[in-house]
Amino acid sequence: MSETNLTEAEVVRTIRRLAATGSQEGVAVGIGDDCAVLEPRPGRRLVATTDLLLEDVHFRRRWAEPADIGWKAMAVNLSDIASMGARPRWALVALAVPTSSTPDEVEAFFEGALSLARQHAVDVVGGDTSAAPVGWLVNITLLGDLETEPRLRSGARPGDVVAVTGALGRSAAGLALLEENARADEPGSSLEAGTRFDLTDAHLRPQPRVLEGQWLGRTPGVTAMMDLSDGLAADLRRLTDESGAGASVRLDQLPIDSRTRQAAKALNRDPLDWATGGGEDYELLLTCEPAAFERLRDGLAEAGGVKLTAIGEITPVARGLRFLDARGNPARVSLGYQHFSAGRANG
Amino acid sequence: MSETNLTEAEVVRTIRRLAATGSQEGVAVGIGDDCAVLEPRPGRRLVATTDLLLEDVHFRRRWAEPADIGWKAMAVNLSDIASMGARPRWALVALAVPTSSTPDEVEAFFEGALSLARQHAVDVVGGDTSAAPVGWLVNITLLGDLETEPRLRSGARPGDVVAVTGALGRSAAGLALLEENARADEPGSSLEAGTRFDLTDAHLRPQPRVLEGQWLGRTPGVTAMMDLSDGLAADLRRLTDESGAGASVRLDQLPIDSRTRQAAKALNRDPLDWATGGGEDYELLLTCEPAAFERLRDGLAEAGGVKLTAIGEITPVARGLRFLDARGNPARVSLGYQHFSAGRANG
Repeated sequence: MSETNLTEAEVVRTIRRLAATGSQEGVAVGIGDDCAVLEPRPGRRLVATTDLLLEDVHFRRRWAEPADIGWKAMAVNLSDIASMGARPRWALVALAVPTSSTPDEVEAFFEGALSLARQHAVDVVGGDTSAAPVGWLVNITLLGDLETEPRLRSGARPGDVVAVTGALGRSAAGLALLEENARADEPGSSLEAGTRFDLTDAHLRPQPRVLEGQWLGRTPGVTAMMDLSDGLAADLRRLTDESGAGASVRLDQLPIDSRTRQAAKALNRDPLDWATGGGEDYELLLTCEPAAFERLRDGLAEAGGVKLTAIGEITPVARGLRFLDARGNPARVSLGYQHFSAGRANG
Repeated sequence: MSETNLTEAEVVRTIRRLAATGSQEGVAVGIGDDCAVLEPRPGRRLVATTDLLLEDVHFRRRWAEPADIGWKAMAVNLSDIASMGARPRWALVALAVPTSSTPDEVEAFFEGALSLARQHAVDVVGGDTSAAPVGWLVNITLLGDLETEPRLRSGARPGDVVAVTGALGRSAAGLALLEENARADEPGSSLEAGTRFDLTDAHLRPQPRVLEGQWLGRTPGVTAMMDLSDGLAADLRRLTDESGAGASVRLDQLPIDSRTRQAAKALNRDPLDWATGGGEDYELLLTCEPAAFERLRDGLAEAGGVKLTAIGEITPVARGLRFLDARGNPARVSLGYQHFSAGRANG
């Protein structure tokens, strides 16, 4: 028996290896990408993903209300479906709560989950409930329809543009504000209430890019796509590893909004750390053919999607994953916290 | 806020009510039966179910090895799919373990789950892993194909025969042996080793009735079907409630095997309590047209299935759920342990 703790990679490798002994019948994409792609019969494809959220690992009851927990559990699954370019359809929700929890708290949890589900026309079609010895825990499984070829992590090629939707670091900024506020005399109190609310909301109730994912999924030119759950540095590493490529990212081109910059200033933090290592932004990370980028950016905006920003390019694998400052010099970045809890067989 | 603890019924009611506000598009059967039935397009149906198993709620590490936990988590989901008469296809497995766990333990867990999955040609196509603050927890979601009309809980009609597959009370007998053995000087030591192994195995590694469920699902005459997870008394109550009917069960006709009787004798327990209230047998409980029973029993045996035993009949709702002794007199039975942890939105 090994004495070492588990790493994500070990677990995923183990699952992948063991699962590969199955028939794989009807499995277009199994373990290793954001979702499984299932093909009950030729021409008909479903996507399926599952996410586990545990109190004191993925959220803290100190600032996450039951409705926030429900929302976020649904959001992280929707984000996985979005990153395949698929249409979310059905959810199964398993919830365990301490026996001291009230029916109102459980109802609030489901209200939070369902309010986001309804925005995306997702039906909760099943689930399970249990008493939990300690702490809340949630597992949501989400199924979706795939009407195009899936956008996998493995499709990036040297020369492709690397791009992200929305802004980066907002969730980490919100978490930092929640942590600081919980501590003492609100060092972030120099911030406008609107800024605080906007950023903490980005952490507690992220908006999965479902419209954007579907639009990008069906539009030619996108070569790879995934969602940003563990931070740009960690997730781009996964994408380039799967694609057998490297990448260079220009830090001065990362989309960091003014509120995030204000919060960083108030808390004496570097917003670049939040943008590269913070995680939980649930934006989409994608690569596309260079000639396609402007068409994709403009088309997505016209379709009602959030802003698409080019942040770098895919390089040959030998050049590795590099972050460059405004002058093009290599820079060190926060890699985030790559712990076992981030392990995902899909996702 | 209510001060009372949660009951299963409250939670299921809440989920059902909230979920009913969704579009229900493509949902042939949503919350409330053993599985959701999904219809991506007319003529094409999938089933989906999810089950949460928590250490010290659903299993104890004292006697359940990681491979046992994996097996059982897969088995309870397979049992749900079986009870719909469906063919299991794809599983998503989410696992959280304390950081002290070793890769070998995690691998053993997946080996246990996959060894049973392979027996039924099920592929694990996704999942999630996490650190757990305390104790193991598992969530498996299982998807399957439905090629016939599903056998729901709501189809029983007065006059129908009530029947079960296999034998009842074996899992409870095995649990009692594990508990007694763990305690002191093995009061069950008068039992043959083979008997102890067989019964503890029934508890730790139940055999879901997948072949039986599919055969019964496609054979005319079966009117309702579900699996026995919480014990005959509790589960038959659910079936009759859903069907708007009553039932009378003859205790002397319950299939209780000789090993279970031996264990009951050795532990000074009543095997009928195990058979009616013990739970976790994962046999199928079904109702059928009276004229169909013998054909079903003989046909299932010919198809390689386990024994089917008639144990009573469906009655008008006004007569309630009654258990009768060998002379036809009402008898009290163990109702099992109906706790919040048994709550299921599907299952």
